[in-house]
Amino acid sequence: MLTLYDYGPSQNGYKVRLLLSHLHLDVRVHEVRIFDGEGQRPEYLARNPTGRIPVLELEDGRTLAESNAILFYLAQGSRYLSRDPWIQAQQLRWMFWEEDFVQNALASLRYWMQTGKLARRPAEVVSERRATSETSLRILDTWLTGREFLTEGGYSIADMSVFAYVSRADEAGLALSDHPAVAAWVERVRTQPGFLDRVIPYATDPSSSRELG
Amino acid sequence: MLTLYDYGPSQNGYKVRLLLSHLHLDVRVHEVRIFDGEGQRPEYLARNPTGRIPVLELEDGRTLAESNAILFYLAQGSRYLSRDPWIQAQQLRWMFWEEDFVQNALASLRYWMQTGKLARRPAEVVSERRATSETSLRILDTWLTGREFLTEGGYSIADMSVFAYVSRADEAGLALSDHPAVAAWVERVRTQPGFLDRVIPYATDPSSSRELG
Repeated sequence: MLTLYDYGPSQNGYKVRLLLSHLHLDVRVHEVRIFDGEGQRPEYLARNPTGRIPVLELEDGRTLAESNAILFYLAQGSRYLSRDPWIQAQQLRWMFWEEDFVQNALASLRYWMQTGKLARRPAEVVSERRATSETSLRILDTWLTGREFLTEGGYSIADMSVFAYVSRADEAGLALSDHPAVAAWVERVRTQPGFLDRVIPYATDPSSSRELG
Repeated sequence: MLTLYDYGPSQNGYKVRLLLSHLHLDVRVHEVRIFDGEGQRPEYLARNPTGRIPVLELEDGRTLAESNAILFYLAQGSRYLSRDPWIQAQQLRWMFWEEDFVQNALASLRYWMQTGKLARRPAEVVSERRATSETSLRILDTWLTGREFLTEGGYSIADMSVFAYVSRADEAGLALSDHPAVAAWVERVRTQPGFLDRVIPYATDPSSSRELG
């Protein structure tokens, strides 16, 4: 059985949980309370030198970090990753875009807002993140106008990746309703078979290791 | 023949030029002077809604954006992308890491320093980028200690991706010499057959369309 090092409130962790739910795949989940410093312990840094989650671990102990790389690995052979090289590259294109445009802006803002850290951040840093987030939502809205999903070939790991934080834009202080094509796509993702509708708020969780159903 | 929308001083463009050099592959290069606003013209935004380069265009007009997605697409079937799903996922892992940790920090710093924009950036924004860059170089130095390249299977598109900006760390005000394993890896990349040793400074370039040898 695979092990997933995860932290409930992380939407990077959610990406992988969402794919696992679509695939009806069970993994052993090991909770890493990254905000309590558990990610910086030497035994965890040996699994992922960034100290972040999620990390996928094989039975033999080999590990794979980065949520988007885990999506790519787990989706092999499934309907959620195209076998067509061109479409596969387009799916990766949106996942790379997500790392650059979403994780560094909307995801940071949401985290700061949800944990009460926003007021302690320099105003210039916050306003830069807001500007990038607005740009990202505009780019996405233009792209999704007239499209069902991010790429040809239907709903894929590219949609799961971008959905994770973009669907929570309101929690980052950005109105999804200003971006109707994005809002419609969010609803479309929610109706996919096996969609996982479980978002965990930021809070300490006493369980350190549990099974994911 | 493929067309590459590119801008000489961009190291994101360099990544693709480096792979093309290794593959001995010729493409038509169309220069997009992104810093003169050419990336924001409607005809270019139709190719890439972010307005950035590089973009790869097929003969039939279909386009692929994001430097790392272009590397993945062009490296298919070559020695620079593993066929082993696990190693391929590890290669992608470092390319995702590059988008998140390098492009948003070291790459921004270098651009601001090289174009004289650093002084006009808020100090808090600059110091945040410096801190992330130092963290990234430390992560990379730990990882590369005892390793020849980023993943099993030898030199790959993952190395090309991370090399593009990390090898120019000095131009971002960060001392590569403080990170000996990274510095040794940079030299190792430079000795690869077909390595492209051409870095173009930021400056206006009168040519708007040229062949890449």
